[in-house]
Amino acid sequence: MVSVSLGANKYGKAENRIVRIYRDTPRHEIVDLNVTSQLRGAALVDSYLTGDNALVVATDTQKNTAFAFAKQHGVTSPEEYLLALADHFVSGFEWIEGGLWQAEQYEWERIIVDGRPHDHSFVRRGQATRLAAVQVVDGATHVTGGVKDLTVLKSTGSEFAGFPRDRYTTLVETDDRIMATSVTGRWRFLPEAVDAGIDYNTLYADVSAVLLSTFATVHSLALQQTLFAMGKAVIEARPEIAEVRFAMPNKHHFLCDFTPFGLENPGEVFYAADRPYGLIEGTITRDGAASAPDAWRDLPAFV
Amino acid sequence: MVSVSLGANKYGKAENRIVRIYRDTPRHEIVDLNVTSQLRGAALVDSYLTGDNALVVATDTQKNTAFAFAKQHGVTSPEEYLLALADHFVSGFEWIEGGLWQAEQYEWERIIVDGRPHDHSFVRRGQATRLAAVQVVDGATHVTGGVKDLTVLKSTGSEFAGFPRDRYTTLVETDDRIMATSVTGRWRFLPEAVDAGIDYNTLYADVSAVLLSTFATVHSLALQQTLFAMGKAVIEARPEIAEVRFAMPNKHHFLCDFTPFGLENPGEVFYAADRPYGLIEGTITRDGAASAPDAWRDLPAFV
Amino acid sequence: MVSVSLGANKYGKAENRIVRIYRDTPRHEIVDLNVTSQLRGAALVDSYLTGDNALVVATDTQKNTAFAFAKQHGVTSPEEYLLALADHFVSGFEWIEGGLWQAEQYEWERIIVDGRPHDHSFVRRGQATRLAAVQVVDGATHVTGGVKDLTVLKSTGSEFAGFPRDRYTTLVETDDRIMATSVTGRWRFLPEAVDAGIDYNTLYADVSAVLLSTFATVHSLALQQTLFAMGKAVIEARPEIAEVRFAMPNKHHFLCDFTPFGLENPGEVFYAADRPYGLIEGTITRDGAASAPDAWRDLPAFV
Amino acid sequence: MVSVSLGANKYGKAENRIVRIYRDTPRHEIVDLNVTSQLRGAALVDSYLTGDNALVVATDTQKNTAFAFAKQHGVTSPEEYLLALADHFVSGFEWIEGGLWQAEQYEWERIIVDGRPHDHSFVRRGQATRLAAVQVVDGATHVTGGVKDLTVLKSTGSEFAGFPRDRYTTLVETDDRIMATSVTGRWRFLPEAVDAGIDYNTLYADVSAVLLSTFATVHSLALQQTLFAMGKAVIEARPEIAEVRFAMPNKHHFLCDFTPFGLENPGEVFYAADRPYGLIEGTITRDGAASAPDAWRDLPAFV
Repeated sequence: MVSVSLGANKYGKAENRIVRIYRDTPRHEIVDLNVTSQLRGAALVDSYLTGDNALVVATDTQKNTAFAFAKQHGVTSPEEYLLALADHFVSGFEWIEGGLWQAEQYEWERIIVDGRPHDHSFVRRGQATRLAAVQVVDGATHVTGGVKDLTVLKSTGSEFAGFPRDRYTTLVETDDRIMATSVTGRWRFLPEAVDAGIDYNTLYADVSAVLLSTFATVHSLALQQTLFAMGKAVIEARPEIAEVRFAMPNKHHFLCDFTPFGLENPGEVFYAADRPYGLIEGTITRDGAASAPDAWRDLPAFV
Repeated sequence: MVSVSLGANKYGKAENRIVRIYRDTPRHEIVDLNVTSQLRGAALVDSYLTGDNALVVATDTQKNTAFAFAKQHGVTSPEEYLLALADHFVSGFEWIEGGLWQAEQYEWERIIVDGRPHDHSFVRRGQATRLAAVQVVDGATHVTGGVKDLTVLKSTGSEFAGFPRDRYTTLVETDDRIMATSVTGRWRFLPEAVDAGIDYNTLYADVSAVLLSTFATVHSLALQQTLFAMGKAVIEARPEIAEVRFAMPNKHHFLCDFTPFGLENPGEVFYAADRPYGLIEGTITRDGAASAPDAWRDLPAFV
Repeated sequence: MVSVSLGANKYGKAENRIVRIYRDTPRHEIVDLNVTSQLRGAALVDSYLTGDNALVVATDTQKNTAFAFAKQHGVTSPEEYLLALADHFVSGFEWIEGGLWQAEQYEWERIIVDGRPHDHSFVRRGQATRLAAVQVVDGATHVTGGVKDLTVLKSTGSEFAGFPRDRYTTLVETDDRIMATSVTGRWRFLPEAVDAGIDYNTLYADVSAVLLSTFATVHSLALQQTLFAMGKAVIEARPEIAEVRFAMPNKHHFLCDFTPFGLENPGEVFYAADRPYGLIEGTITRDGAASAPDAWRDLPAFV
Repeated sequence: MVSVSLGANKYGKAENRIVRIYRDTPRHEIVDLNVTSQLRGAALVDSYLTGDNALVVATDTQKNTAFAFAKQHGVTSPEEYLLALADHFVSGFEWIEGGLWQAEQYEWERIIVDGRPHDHSFVRRGQATRLAAVQVVDGATHVTGGVKDLTVLKSTGSEFAGFPRDRYTTLVETDDRIMATSVTGRWRFLPEAVDAGIDYNTLYADVSAVLLSTFATVHSLALQQTLFAMGKAVIEARPEIAEVRFAMPNKHHFLCDFTPFGLENPGEVFYAADRPYGLIEGTITRDGAASAPDAWRDLPAFV
């Protein structure tokens, strides 16, 4: 006789596309979010076992709340907005023990008209997408920020050599290659920094700048080394950050072989390949900071 | 003075698109895979800290090995192929302690010509993508199978009512709605079953059929209930399976309101919405089976 | 002094995701469409020049009509449904001279339970997407059917040789390669066949079968030759069809070179490349059928 | 007896991802292209009819040539690069009568380090993709530039009212809405301007700026009106441009109804919808410029 049980679970409403306009003055502000809310609680087991929905805060209700909170609480930063949402569900429903709230933020720039930024017209920036997540587990609240699709390339200053060779190794060593990646990273905030209050928007700008400048200036012997240096620089730059996780595809650019055509190609023409790609992932932690595996529960690994 | 350390990490080559043709007889067979190989080992830390690649089995070497093994070992099933690959890296390089090997498999059907399946011409089936993963951690090998993008819909036999109402609740109760989802699931095999040998391809077909028939026949009071019933049925159907994890979006189909046009709409015309969507996730475990969190390390949560 | 004029234009509502359930008996039927409606008329010029919307049948109204017609007229076939929609707009608003109405149809199969197809539970087939379009220009109505993403592969029976060589030619001739493509095709119906009435659903099934079997059985010397043979077979199979247009990517599968590893690879292991890909496009016309360039206006070229 | 003929056709290699680095000084430059080359010629008919490839300049050869030309001719602008490629094929093979050459260009910005742009490290801009195409038909050469995915939004300054109402009209008139679109546009250059030589890069920057500022400053009564104004402004700004074609989705932002929650929503919180969307398309032509339908052959309509 087979018997089974319900293990880890959560449920909610994913990808609520919420646009918040601040229009209190003629100079409007725009915040553009993609918000996911999911709840957990042992008491919810009956919805799985028997379809008893008496404790199921409907996913539609979660959606309504997410939109309403953009009005009631505003969106100073995605992190603070998610914290308000998390507190609402965990405080407001005694059987909701925790959950995961996530946001993507799309950035907009003001359109320039006659050399001046326009009051209410915007163009989507497109350079990267900002990430934020709040997780509540066992009474503890964890906050992470992040970025994805930050695509960078350096046309020199990257080597790859000294690796072991076996029967299947054909790669030639190189002391000058293109290195390109699309950075996805998340940084976890120290709980005490969250409690003290963080200027999340300034921090995001700082971290983005540090990621870019570190990528640019590190002479790279391996993408692993660049990844670690980027994480180290982020932690050094901002005392609020406990750890950083990265996933970095090595977006290969292959030098074209023009010898059949009688041409030279001294690092000038490359074929940008789609698949396969290297995939380097790693965590950089601040020494002395307590680890917090719950903060990362169900977040995409190394994303 | 800030000091940092390297935490969890892995690296490798992602999305190797490997097509294996069996052509020993005029009746060819095709296996179409997307393979990702990633390695872990404490000794690799120097590649991150200093760019010392002396122990870095190049991602290019991992790629070459993945292609070569499709020849040397064949691809009886994605699970067995990944097991061979994992064993090669862990056994062949003493400093490689483990890793994660993943595959997607795209299914092809024979084209029908004059009522008979053709020997060497195929059409891509497209109904779903098969998943497999092998994880080696601390000397233990974990195997999971899975499926994604199995899109199903029932046009009746689904209710949703009895949920709590608060200030933000506007959802109307219903005793007849469309229920649609795109099933993503992974099932972990019992280690003793892996050791004894599993007919992974027959198992995949069995599990797929059970997923479909259970979705069809359960009168649903909530997607949570359907999810649990599907997992339970899978575990009941195959003794090799220790647990199942699902992520199921509730792909909303909203009944159109035709009253402004003076028309009735008794469950006939629906608007299929993209975003937001409900997202229900859960694990169903076989009672008595040992848990194995390492098996799921870095696999997309509930995927 | 620069002066400008409005040229060709149209406007409407794109990608209405309409799901129609037939539930008159316990055995339900499902039709799943993505519908785009766009209108043209010289009188609409003022909406462009001055923002005068007095004649602008709102895109929201077009959407409402498309959903309502799924109830009022049903969806016997996408072609007939679009014809009803086209007639409504062109007949109902004297200043609407014509337009373009398009549909994609996603196919569903019944789920099998205990060996029998279920009454109201379905799984999305995923093998290809059906296309239909109706165009009204200058009082003439044109109807086209089609298919996209029909992905096929043959593991032998394909050669490519005899092509000219110049300074930039490095391709080696082959008498045995994998040939794979993802067929996108549209077929235009003869106006007299449209007037007489066509069983569009049976025709679609017939054409799909002919496309597949012709791909399978033609020994291919070039993808161009296969494309032409497929179009010829379609026109021969169904007298209602005046012409066929195809776009066929040559989805390259490169034989892996295993000589560095001391392995042979007699047509067994291939790398499936993403980009670049060959792209072969062509039209096959029934001799004697009048051409109808208006039928193809603004349809994606060779799609 | 059914007889068929070959109609319009072309063939080539699509989506060659070519990255060109200029490294003659320490301050590198990067040009990142996605190039498609396709050829036409009546003599190619035999490849379709019989698989005779004697005149088929292989798609692989077209690819090699595209990469080699990035070295031999450089990529001053995508338009000039495509002109060189077109001339090579049409001049170099007497049976090649014409073709279509297309490019997408992805823009990169220098990474800022210590307040200064870095010499060889770049971040992908992501704001929009530049388009270019060269078409040769009947001995005439046509050049078009363009842009896609330029996503803009204005949070006020947009109305929609005065449209006709019928049975299916439910849309409420509004004098203040969000207007958002993702601009795709192509502009055709006057042949005499092409002959005289155009600074294509400066022109692209100028046109982009005019598109943005016109979108920002036009008080919009309809997206049609905004579209026309944007095209008019482009033609007024640059005498080299004969006509402009646009496709502009109306990316709907729906004001959330918070009355069930007892909240006001004075234009502050919106739901950004995916599908369906309005789709407005139109051409703006310079009065007196000769039309050139061949220039647009097989280019995606209104793209």
